[in-house]
Amino acid sequence: MSGTLYGIGLGPGDPELMTLKAHRLIASAKVVAYPAPDTGESFARSIAAGTIPHTAREIPIVVPMRVDRFPAQEIYDKASDEIAAVLATGEDVVTLCEGDPFFYGSFMYLFDRLSDRFAIEIVPGVTSLTACAAQLQRPLTSRNDVLTVIPGPLPDTEIEQKIAEAQAVAIMKVGRHLSRLRALLGRMGLLERAGYVERASLAEQKVHRLIDLEAETAPYFSMILIYKGDEAWTLPPSFSS
Amino acid sequence: MSGTLYGIGLGPGDPELMTLKAHRLIASAKVVAYPAPDTGESFARSIAAGTIPHTAREIPIVVPMRVDRFPAQEIYDKASDEIAAVLATGEDVVTLCEGDPFFYGSFMYLFDRLSDRFAIEIVPGVTSLTACAAQLQRPLTSRNDVLTVIPGPLPDTEIEQKIAEAQAVAIMKVGRHLSRLRALLGRMGLLERAGYVERASLAEQKVHRLIDLEAETAPYFSMILIYKGDEAWTLPPSFSS
Repeated sequence: MSGTLYGIGLGPGDPELMTLKAHRLIASAKVVAYPAPDTGESFARSIAAGTIPHTAREIPIVVPMRVDRFPAQEIYDKASDEIAAVLATGEDVVTLCEGDPFFYGSFMYLFDRLSDRFAIEIVPGVTSLTACAAQLQRPLTSRNDVLTVIPGPLPDTEIEQKIAEAQAVAIMKVGRHLSRLRALLGRMGLLERAGYVERASLAEQKVHRLIDLEAETAPYFSMILIYKGDEAWTLPPSFSS
Repeated sequence: MSGTLYGIGLGPGDPELMTLKAHRLIASAKVVAYPAPDTGESFARSIAAGTIPHTAREIPIVVPMRVDRFPAQEIYDKASDEIAAVLATGEDVVTLCEGDPFFYGSFMYLFDRLSDRFAIEIVPGVTSLTACAAQLQRPLTSRNDVLTVIPGPLPDTEIEQKIAEAQAVAIMKVGRHLSRLRALLGRMGLLERAGYVERASLAEQKVHRLIDLEAETAPYFSMILIYKGDEAWTLPPSFSS
C-alpha cells in the first residue's frame, strides 16, 4: 500500500491563514516537500515553519530564481523520483504550497508526474486573490460580475482587451511589469480604480491605490485589482500609510 | 471606542477548511451574525457550529430564499442597524460568511452600510473555486493562463464569448441553469473538457465529468470548471462514483 501525496495550500503568507486541515496534516507529517530558491529561504516553508515537526524529513525542491522562470523539467523529474521513492514505502508526503496548489502553483509539476501512480489529495488554500481584496477593503466580485484573472507577463494588447471585457480584474505576478502595467492602466483611464498589494497578509505588506504608488518595480508576489464599478474608490483611512 | 466588524470567510463547507484565524476569532466571539434562510438551517452557521461559543449572542440575518434573489435593501438596512448598535457599545461583531466574504458574498451588503462608520477587518477564506478544482483533481490555472469566472445566470451569448476568450473557466451559481449551460457547452464541443462539482468538501458532495452527469437541476452551490488545454481529461478512478 503506497502513501498519499498531499498538496497543501498554505494561504498567502500569514501562518494564521492556513486552514485547520493544512495545520493538522503538516503537524503530523513525517516527510515534507517544498519549493525552495537556490539562495535564501523557501517562502512556503517559512509559512509552515512553526508547524513542521522537528523530526520530519525535509525534501526541498530547489528551483533557481530567474525572472519569469518556467520550471526546468529536470528538477521536477528528480524531485518526483525522490518523492515517489518515499510514497512507494507506504509513507505519505506532505507538499507545502504557497496560496492554493492548483491556482498558478508549481505543485502541478509534481501532480503531472505522480498522479497516474499514487493517490493525491489536494487541500485548497486561501489564494492571494481574495487575500489582496481583503487588504484593499473592497469586494472583489458581487452579484453577476465576471471576474478575469490575468498574468502580468502577457502583452499589453491582450491585457487591455481582457480588462475591457470584465467587471472585476486581477493582474497577478506584477513584478517587473509594474511600470508597463501602470502606463497601460493610465491610458485606459483606470489608475484611480486600481489597487495595489504586495506581500499580502505578511508584516511587510504594502497596500496602495496604484495612482499613489511610487515604486518602479514590484516583488513577484504583488497584485493589481481593478474595480470598474461606477463609484469612486478610495482606500480606507487606515491604509493611507 | 467602537467595536470592529469582522467579515470571516469560512471556506466551502468542511469545517476543517476554515483558517486558524477564523477559528480563533469565532471561538472567542461574543456576538456572531450570519445569513440565514427563512426556513431551515444557515449554511454559514452550520460550518462554524462546532466553534461558536454557547454564550455568544447570535444575530441571524434572515433573507428569504428565492431563485436568483437579490437582497432586499430593507433586510440589510435592519441588520446593519442591529450590528451598528452592538459595535457602538464597543463590542466586536463576527460575521460568518460562506467561502470568502468578498468573493460573490453577501457580506458586501453589510460592508457597504457600515464601512464609513466602523473599523472592518476581512479574514479571507478558501473559495469554492479552488475547493472545486481540488475535488476534480485538476489544476485550475497554471503558468500564464487567463482565468475567467462567469456567473451561470448570464445569457448564453455572453457566456459563450467569455469562454471562447479564456484558457480556464469557472461557471458559478449553476443551479437551475444546468440544462441550459450543458446544452451551450455541448454546442461549443466542450462537454468532455468540463467538470461538475456540487457542495464541494461536504459529505454530500458530487463530483462528475459534466458529460456523465444525469441530473437536470443542480443546487445553488454548484460549479462547472472547464479546461481548454490540449490533453484529454478524465476524472481519477477514485471519483468514478
